[in-house]
Amino acid sequence: MPSSFQSIILKLQDFWASHGCLITQPYYTQVGAGTMNPATFLRVLGPEPWNVAYVEPSVRPDDGRYGENPNRFQKHTQYQVILKPDPAAGPAASGVREGPQELYLESLKALGIDPRQHDIRFVEDNWEQPAIAAWGLGWEVWLDGQEITQFTYFQQMGGVTLNPVSVEITYGLERILIALNNAKAIWDEEWGAGVTYGEIIRREEFEHSKYYYEVADVERARQMYDLYSAEADACLAQGLLVPAHDYVLKSSHTFNILDARGAISVAERQAFFRRMRELARRVAEGYEEQRKELEYPLLKESQKSKVKGQILPSTFDLRPSTFILEIGVEELPASDVDTAYEQLTQRIPSLLKELYLDYGDIRIFSTPRRLAVSIGNLSPRQPDREDLVKGPPADKAFDKDGIALPAGMGFAKKNNVDTKALEVREEGGGKYVFTVVKQKGRPTPEVLAEALPKLIESIKFEKSMRWNDSGVAFSRPIRWYVALLGDMVIPFEYASVVSGDISRGLRPYDSPEIKIPSADKYFDAIRESGIVLDKEERKASIVEQVKQAASLVGGQAIIEEGLLSEVANLIEMPTAVMGGFDKEYLTLPRDVLISVMKKHQRYFPVQRVGATLQSQSVALSGKDTSQSSSRLTQGESPLLANFIAIRNGDDIGVDTVRQGNEHVLGARFADANFFVREDLKLKLEEYRPKLSTLTFHTKLGSMLDKSERIEKLVNDLIPMLGLEKDEAIFACRAAYLCKADLVTQMVTEMTSLQGIIGREYALRSGEQKDIAVAIGEQYQTVPQSKIGLAVTLADRLDSLVGLFAAGLAPTGAKDPFGLRRSAIGVVQPLIEHNVDFDLAEAVKKSAKTQPIEVKDDVQKQILEFITGRLKVVLGDLGYKHDVVDAVLAEQSANPAASVRAVKQLQSWTEREDWSSILDGYARCVRILKSAGAEGNHKINQKLLVEAEEKNLHEAIQKNVKAQPANVDEFLNVVLKLIPSITAFFDKVLVMAEDQKVKQNRLALVGQIGNLSHSLADLSRLEGF
Amino acid sequence: MPSSFQSIILKLQDFWASHGCLITQPYYTQVGAGTMNPATFLRVLGPEPWNVAYVEPSVRPDDGRYGENPNRFQKHTQYQVILKPDPAAGPAASGVREGPQELYLESLKALGIDPRQHDIRFVEDNWEQPAIAAWGLGWEVWLDGQEITQFTYFQQMGGVTLNPVSVEITYGLERILIALNNAKAIWDEEWGAGVTYGEIIRREEFEHSKYYYEVADVERARQMYDLYSAEADACLAQGLLVPAHDYVLKSSHTFNILDARGAISVAERQAFFRRMRELARRVAEGYEEQRKELEYPLLKESQKSKVKGQILPSTFDLRPSTFILEIGVEELPASDVDTAYEQLTQRIPSLLKELYLDYGDIRIFSTPRRLAVSIGNLSPRQPDREDLVKGPPADKAFDKDGIALPAGMGFAKKNNVDTKALEVREEGGGKYVFTVVKQKGRPTPEVLAEALPKLIESIKFEKSMRWNDSGVAFSRPIRWYVALLGDMVIPFEYASVVSGDISRGLRPYDSPEIKIPSADKYFDAIRESGIVLDKEERKASIVEQVKQAASLVGGQAIIEEGLLSEVANLIEMPTAVMGGFDKEYLTLPRDVLISVMKKHQRYFPVQRVGATLQSQSVALSGKDTSQSSSRLTQGESPLLANFIAIRNGDDIGVDTVRQGNEHVLGARFADANFFVREDLKLKLEEYRPKLSTLTFHTKLGSMLDKSERIEKLVNDLIPMLGLEKDEAIFACRAAYLCKADLVTQMVTEMTSLQGIIGREYALRSGEQKDIAVAIGEQYQTVPQSKIGLAVTLADRLDSLVGLFAAGLAPTGAKDPFGLRRSAIGVVQPLIEHNVDFDLAEAVKKSAKTQPIEVKDDVQKQILEFITGRLKVVLGDLGYKHDVVDAVLAEQSANPAASVRAVKQLQSWTEREDWSSILDGYARCVRILKSAGAEGNHKINQKLLVEAEEKNLHEAIQKNVKAQPANVDEFLNVVLKLIPSITAFFDKVLVMAEDQKVKQNRLALVGQIGNLSHSLADLSRLEGF
Repeated sequence: MPSSFQSIILKLQDFWASHGCLITQPYYTQVGAGTMNPATFLRVLGPEPWNVAYVEPSVRPDDGRYGENPNRFQKHTQYQVILKPDPAAGPAASGVREGPQELYLESLKALGIDPRQHDIRFVEDNWEQPAIAAWGLGWEVWLDGQEITQFTYFQQMGGVTLNPVSVEITYGLERILIALNNAKAIWDEEWGAGVTYGEIIRREEFEHSKYYYEVADVERARQMYDLYSAEADACLAQGLLVPAHDYVLKSSHTFNILDARGAISVAERQAFFRRMRELARRVAEGYEEQRKELEYPLLKESQKSKVKGQILPSTFDLRPSTFILEIGVEELPASDVDTAYEQLTQRIPSLLKELYLDYGDIRIFSTPRRLAVSIGNLSPRQPDREDLVKGPPADKAFDKDGIALPAGMGFAKKNNVDTKALEVREEGGGKYVFTVVKQKGRPTPEVLAEALPKLIESIKFEKSMRWNDSGVAFSRPIRWYVALLGDMVIPFEYASVVSGDISRGLRPYDSPEIKIPSADKYFDAIRESGIVLDKEERKASIVEQVKQAASLVGGQAIIEEGLLSEVANLIEMPTAVMGGFDKEYLTLPRDVLISVMKKHQRYFPVQRVGATLQSQSVALSGKDTSQSSSRLTQGESPLLANFIAIRNGDDIGVDTVRQGNEHVLGARFADANFFVREDLKLKLEEYRPKLSTLTFHTKLGSMLDKSERIEKLVNDLIPMLGLEKDEAIFACRAAYLCKADLVTQMVTEMTSLQGIIGREYALRSGEQKDIAVAIGEQYQTVPQSKIGLAVTLADRLDSLVGLFAAGLAPTGAKDPFGLRRSAIGVVQPLIEHNVDFDLAEAVKKSAKTQPIEVKDDVQKQILEFITGRLKVVLGDLGYKHDVVDAVLAEQSANPAASVRAVKQLQSWTEREDWSSILDGYARCVRILKSAGAEGNHKINQKLLVEAEEKNLHEAIQKNVKAQPANVDEFLNVVLKLIPSITAFFDKVLVMAEDQKVKQNRLALVGQIGNLSHSLADLSRLEGF
Repeated sequence: MPSSFQSIILKLQDFWASHGCLITQPYYTQVGAGTMNPATFLRVLGPEPWNVAYVEPSVRPDDGRYGENPNRFQKHTQYQVILKPDPAAGPAASGVREGPQELYLESLKALGIDPRQHDIRFVEDNWEQPAIAAWGLGWEVWLDGQEITQFTYFQQMGGVTLNPVSVEITYGLERILIALNNAKAIWDEEWGAGVTYGEIIRREEFEHSKYYYEVADVERARQMYDLYSAEADACLAQGLLVPAHDYVLKSSHTFNILDARGAISVAERQAFFRRMRELARRVAEGYEEQRKELEYPLLKESQKSKVKGQILPSTFDLRPSTFILEIGVEELPASDVDTAYEQLTQRIPSLLKELYLDYGDIRIFSTPRRLAVSIGNLSPRQPDREDLVKGPPADKAFDKDGIALPAGMGFAKKNNVDTKALEVREEGGGKYVFTVVKQKGRPTPEVLAEALPKLIESIKFEKSMRWNDSGVAFSRPIRWYVALLGDMVIPFEYASVVSGDISRGLRPYDSPEIKIPSADKYFDAIRESGIVLDKEERKASIVEQVKQAASLVGGQAIIEEGLLSEVANLIEMPTAVMGGFDKEYLTLPRDVLISVMKKHQRYFPVQRVGATLQSQSVALSGKDTSQSSSRLTQGESPLLANFIAIRNGDDIGVDTVRQGNEHVLGARFADANFFVREDLKLKLEEYRPKLSTLTFHTKLGSMLDKSERIEKLVNDLIPMLGLEKDEAIFACRAAYLCKADLVTQMVTEMTSLQGIIGREYALRSGEQKDIAVAIGEQYQTVPQSKIGLAVTLADRLDSLVGLFAAGLAPTGAKDPFGLRRSAIGVVQPLIEHNVDFDLAEAVKKSAKTQPIEVKDDVQKQILEFITGRLKVVLGDLGYKHDVVDAVLAEQSANPAASVRAVKQLQSWTEREDWSSILDGYARCVRILKSAGAEGNHKINQKLLVEAEEKNLHEAIQKNVKAQPANVDEFLNVVLKLIPSITAFFDKVLVMAEDQKVKQNRLALVGQIGNLSHSLADLSRLEGF
C-alpha cells in the first residue's frame, strides 16, 4: 500500500518523540529552511543540550516551477531534527556505539525504507549559509540517487563557534514520499484522507511561482526589507532576540523574493548578505550572552566524568606479528579518502623508524568508511639501544677544576648516569657535555598505544570538523578503531573513541559488527563482508561493470578518470545499475545532459558506439572537467537515453534503485527543460542588456561594461591576430554576445554551463554557427577557432588589465579572480595556435578601454605576470628549466615565438658537441663580462695584430650578415665560428696592456657575444 | 503521570488522522487564529468536502503578559479541526447518529479527559471576526470552568455564505494541558523530553510582550501595513489568491501590533477593518470563482440520494393517550432555551385547536439539550366534522336560471358534493355559494406527522444557523426527536433528522441512548437519567445548593435572578461546587471581582454575612446588571475569597472540577491584577490626553472633546442644580476626569467596568473621595451624590444634544447610541433628587458647546423626546396614565416639579368627592371651550345681574389671590369654589342673549377655568 504524506510525518514524530526529542512546530514566518527556525538557529548555541524535531515548510521563491516539476517547488516540506550533543558523544564504554547516523537509518526503517532494498549513500556536503554566518560539514543522504536528507554537524551559527556541536538532520519529505511510493511525481500521491498532494498544493504552487517571478513589486519589497532590518535593529537595541530574529527572517525572505524577481545585482547581493549576516551575528551573540546570564537553565547535570586511564597489557607474545589499524569513520568526502591515504602512506614508514620498530610490508587502504593500515612482521618490541644525549655547555656542567656544577649534576641525574660518565665534546663550535644513555627497548603495544593517537591526530584535511566534547577535529566523526597486533588489542583512546577488535560492515547491511579475531584475519573478514578495501580494485570493478552495462544497450560509456576516482571513493562495494530516461530530453544540449549526469548525480553517461572519446577523456584527467567536457563537443557521438549509476552494495532491490535514480534524473532533466524553455522565450541578444545588473567589479563596472570593453578590444586584436574579413565580422558579433548567457536561468542554475549555453542559445536564436562556436569556446583554455581565440584573449586580457589596475593582483596563495588561470589562458592558446602576438601592445590597448587608469608600471607588472605563467606552461610542456629561462630572459612578449625559440634551443642543447659550442660562446661572453665591457665598439682593423685575431675577424665578416632572426640561425653562426673562437682564445691575450688593442679585441669578441640579443641568454644554461 | 504538551498534540494528530482528517501544518505567517490559515479560510468556501486538522500557534499581541500570567500569552497554541460537511449531515438511517460534538468528546477521551470526572460544558458563543467578514454560531467548551475549545458552525466566511456549513473545532492546547495536569500555570508543565513549557517559551513571551507593547515602531508598522495591503491588491489583480491572502494575514498581524501599541483610534479602527474586510472578501469571492472554474476537483461523488418518504402507521390504538415530543439539540444558548419555551407554550394549544384534536394537560419544558412537549389525553383521531366552505360569487357559480356554471361545478367537484348541495349566502355585502363539507376525522398520528415539522419550523430565534444540507435554520443543530403517541412513534423527518423513540442522556454520562417505551414513561425515564426537565426546579435546586455552600464558609451567596436564570439554562443537572481563590486578589476592586465571577464564569460570589444585598439584587432583576452591581458599592459587605460554580452532572470527580475552576478564576484575577498594576503606573489624570485617540462621533470629535464639553456644561449646571462651593469645585474636577478611565487597559479589557475603574483609580491617584465617587456614579442611572448628578446630567445631555444635532435621533426600534436610556438618565435622577431644573435652559447651554449648530427646532425636538421618556418613567412609577398626561400637557421641562404635580393630582383623583370637584371645574372649562372663549376678559361688576353670579364673583375674589403655585393650591381653591360654581351653573344662563352679559359671565367662569394653567390640563383626566 502506498504511503501518504501525512503518515510519514506522523511516523517521524512518533519515532523522534520516542527517541527523546521535543516535538515543536514550524515557525510562524516564512523561512527558507528549518535551520532558520529559532528552535535550531538559537538553540544550537551555547552548552545546553537540545533535542528537537519539527516539520518546516520551507519557502524558496527561486525554486518555484509553477507546479510543473515533479519534485521541485517554491514550498517544500522539511522534517528537521537537532541532536545536541551528538548522541554518540561521550566516551564509549567499549568499541562501537550507536551514533546519529544509525539513529537516522533506524528512522528510515520506521518509514518503511529497508536499506537492503535501496541504495542509501552519504555524499559529502559542506553546508554553508552565508546569510546567517553558519557552516557545517556532513552529507547529503541519497536514496537511489535522490537526495532525501541533509545531515550536518554544525560547526558555526551566526558567526559563533558551536560547542558542543549539533547534529542536524533535515529530511525532504516530498522526495521521501516519491521514493517510498516509487512515484514519478509528487502530485498524484496521497497527502492523507484520500486527498492527493497535488489537489492541495498544486494551484498554490502555480500562484506563488507566478507571484515570485512576475508579480511581486520590487520597490515595495525593497521597502519591506528596509523596514524589517530597521525593526531588527530596534529589537536588538532592547535585547529582544527572538523578535529581532523574526525580522532577520523576514528580511531574508524578502531578499529571496527580490532575488527571484532578478532585482539583485552581484554588488548589491554582497551588501544584502553583509547586512543579514551582521544581524544574524548580533542575534546569535546576544542569545549566547542571554543564556549565560540565565545560567544555562537547560544544562541540567554535568556529563559523566572523564574516562579512566588506558589499560596496558601485562604480557605479550614475542614473535613478530601483523599489525592492523582500522579507523572507522562516518562517510568521508571522496577527496579526503585520498588525502588520508596519501598521508598515511607517507607517514607510516617514518613513524616506524622513529619508533625503532622493525617491520615488513606496509599496506594502506582507504574507503569512505575506513582507513586501514596493515604492517607485516612488526617486531614485538623495540631493540635495546644506546643514545648519545647532549647536555649543557661544558663550562656550565663543570667548573675549571672539573668538578660537577648543578647543571651537570642535574643532567646526569636525569639520564640516570654518574657525572663521571659525562664527556665533553665539541659541537657547532661550542663545547658541551654528552652522555651515552642505554635505552631498553619497550614492548611494541606500549609504544603503539602512545603513538597511534598522535598518528591519527597528524592526519589533516582541507576542512575538518568537531563533533563531540573531545574537541578533536577530523574530516568526519570517528566512530571506531580496530587496533590489533596479532590477536591483541592495542588499547588507546582518541576523540572519545576507544580501540577494540570490532569493525563494522557495509552500510546497506546495517553496518553489522565484525569481530576481527586477529590482525592476520582482517583482510579476510573485511572481504567476506563484501567490502572492497583497495581503491584500485574498486575502480577496476567499476570500469568493467560500466563497460558491460553500456554494451547491453549497444552503447559506450563515457568514463572520465575524475568521476571514476570520485565514485570509487563513494562506495565500498560497487554494483553498476543501468537506467534510462525519457528520449525527449535528448533534445537538451548534450553538455547539459552530461553535466547533470556527472556533476549532480555521478552517473556515467552512455553514447552511441563509434566515438573514441573515452580514452581521450581519461587522458585529460579530471583536473578541469568543464574544459574537457567542452572538448567533447568536437567529434562527439550522440548520447543514448541511458546512464549508469554505481550503487553501494549488492544487487538486492536493484530495480527499486534503478527506478529511484531514473526518477531523480527525470526530475533534473525536467528542471533543465523548464529553464531552457523559459530562456528560449527571448533571443540570446535580448539577454545582453540585463548584464547591467551583474557587477563584474565595483571599480570596473557591470558585466555589460566588460562586455563592451571586450568588443572594443576584439576590434584591436583582429589585425594583430590576422583575422580574415568574415572572421572579423563574426568575432565582433561573438564578442557582442559572449556574456549574454550569464543572465539566463539555465546558467544561473548551473554556472558550469556558461558558454555552452551561450553557444546553444545562439544557434537557436539564429546566429551563424561560427559565432555560436566562438561563444562556446570562451571558457575553454584553448579555443579551436580563430574567432574564439580573439574573443577569449580579449576577455582574459580585460580581466588581467582591469583587475591589476584595480589593485587586485594575486598575492601569495590568494587569487580570488583566477588571474593565474587567465594568464595561462592567454599564453596557451597563442602557443597552440602558434600566432605571433605582441602582448605589450595588447595590454596597452586594453588599458585604454579601462574605466580606471592603468599606469605604465602596472602594465609592466602585468606582462611580467604573464611571463611567469608562460614559464610554467613551458615547464609543463617538458622543456628544460634552464632553456626556458634562457629564452624568456630575452624574449617573452610573444609566447608563440618564445616557444619556437625554446624548442630550437633545447634541441641544440641536446647535441653531442653542445658543450664545445656553448663553451666557445661562453668564453666570449664571460670575457666581456669580466672586463665590464659591452663589446659594441667598432673594430679597427689596423689594430688587429695576431693571425688568430685576424682570422676570427674574417670568419665573423663572412658568417654574420645581420643579427640572427632566431635561435637556430644564431647558433648555426656560432657553430661556424667555433674553430676561430677557440684559436683566438688559445693564442691571443685579449686583455692586452695596450688599452686600444684590448678595446679592439673586446669589440671583436663582442660581435659574437651580442649575437644572442633578443633570442636567449645562454648564460642561464647549465654548463655555461 | 502528567501529560506533556507534545503528547497532547501527537494524540490529537492520531485521533483525527484516524477519523478521516488530513493533517496539515501551521501557516507560515503570523495568524491570530487557525481560522486564518487558508486550510480553513479558503477551504470552507464552496461545496467541496474538506476534513482537516492542524496545530496553529496563534499570535495575539494584545494578550502578551510578559510571561507572567499562568495561561495567557501573546502566542498560544491552537489545534484546529475543520469538518465539512457536518459529519452527522445527510439523512440518518434511524434515530440518533454520531455528530461532531460526540466526535469531539471522543477526542477528549483520547486525551484522557473522562467526562464523568469533569464538568464539560457547551457555553453559547456567537463567533464573529469582522476583519474577515466571518461569523458562525456555536459554543465555548468549558472544562471545569476553563474554556478549552471553541466549537463553531461557520455560517459565513469572507462575506460569502457557506454551503455546506463547516464545523470548526479549535482546541486551546495550553489550557487543556493545565487542566489535564491539574496545574496552576503552564510554565512548569512538561513540553516533552523532560523540558518544560516555560523553559522553552517563557523568555520568548517576555520578549514579544515587550516588543509589542513597548518597542514596535508605529511609523514603520504603518508603512508595512500599507505595503502589505498594496501587495494584496496586486496579487488579487492577477488572480493570485493564496499570495493575496498571505498579505491580508500580514496586514492583519501588523494591525494587531499597532493596536497593542495603542496607536489605533476608534475612527481609524473602522477604516482598517473596512480595508481588511474588503480584501478578505475579494480573496474569498475569487477563491469560490476559481474552484468553480476548476469544477470543484474535490467534489468526488454526489452524496447518497434523498431519503425515502415517510412511513405511516397502518393501525392505531383508539384510546386517548399521552403524547410526547422531545426535540434533541446541541446545547442551546441560555436565552434561546427561554425563547423556545415561550413560543411552544403559546403555540401548542392553538395548534391543537387548529388540528381539531382534543387534549388534556399541556406541559412544556426546556433545557439546553432538549425541548419537550407533553400533552395528556390526546384524542386518537380528529372528530368527523362539517365545515361550511365558501365558493365563488353566486353569479359566477350559477346563471340566472340557477344552472351551474363551470366555476360552480368546479367548486362542487372539489368539495366532493353535488352542485345541488351548494347554497347561496350573503357575506360582506356580496353573494357567494357555500357548501357544507363533511370532513372525516383523520387519525392523530397522521395529523401530527404532518404538523410536527411545521411546528418545529415555526420556532424562531434571534440568531439561527444552518448546519447541514437540509438548509434548515435553528438555534443550534437538531440531533434527534422523540415523538411518541402512547407507545407509537409518530414518524416524520425534519432537518434531515428522523423521529424515533430514542432520547439521549446527560452529556457527562456520554449522552447515552435512552429508549422511551411509551409517552407515559417519558418523565420517569428522563428523571431516572438524572436530568431535571423543569427550569423552575433547576433554579430552586441551585438556590438551595448555593445557599448551603455559602453557609459552609460562613458566608452569604450573592444570587442575582439574571445569573440564576442563565445558569439554570446551562445545565440539565445542577450540582454546586464551591471553590476559593487567593486572598491577595481581594485587594482588587470589588466590582472587578464580581464582574469576573459573574460575567465571565457564571459563578455566584460569596460575601460576609450581614449585608442584605441578596434580596435587593434579586429585586432589581437582571435587567441592568452593571447598574445593580454598581449599587452594591453602597453599604456592601466584604467579599469572601470563595465562589460557587454550578456543574452539569453529579458530584463524581468534583475535586477535579473545583480545582479546574479555581485555576481559571485565579488566571483571570491574575490578568485583572496585571491590568490594574500596569494601569496604576500612571495617575488617572495622565490618561486623559489619550482620550483624543477615541472617537466619540466623527461629527462631534473625540472623547477628549466630549470630556471638555462636559466640563463646560457642568460649570453651567452648578448654579442650576444649586451646588455648594465645595461641591462645585469637586464637580469640575470630576467632570475633568470622568472619561479618563476609558483608555486604561482594565476598561479596554472589560468595558462594563467603566466608571467603577475610574473611581478606583481616582482614589488610588489621590483624588478626593467625593470626586472619585462622582466618577464611579456616572454610569448609574441615578447617581447618589449631587456632584455625580451634575457630571452625569452633563454627560447625558451632551450626548442627546450632540447626536440629535448630528441627525442621529432614534428612529423606530433603532437606537444605536442608547439615547432613550440617556433621556431616562436625565429625568430619573432629577426626579429622585427632587431638584427643580430647567431642561430647556440646559439644552440651550449644551447646544452652545457643540461643534455643530443645534437649531431651535432641534432643541425642541430634544425636549419632546425627553418628555416622552419622562412619561414612561412616571408610568413605570405607577401613576395613572391620565394623570400623567394631564400634568405633562402643562409642565414637562422640570421633571421634579412634574412628578410633584402628578403625585398631588393623583391623590386628588383618589378623593371620594373628586367627581364633584372635577365636574364643577369641568363645567367651567367646557363652557369656555364650547363658546370658543378664552375667558380672560376683565369682569365688569355692573353687568353682574343674578345673585348666584355675584356670589361666585365674591367667592373668587375671596379665594383666588394669585395664580396657584401648584396642583394642591389650585384644587384647594377649586374645592372652595365648588358650591358657588354649582349654584351659578344651576341658576345662571351663561350664554345670555345680551352679548355683553354673556361676555362678562364667560370672563367670570374663565377666572376659574384658567387657574390650571401651567399646572395640569384636567380635560385629559378620566371623567372630565
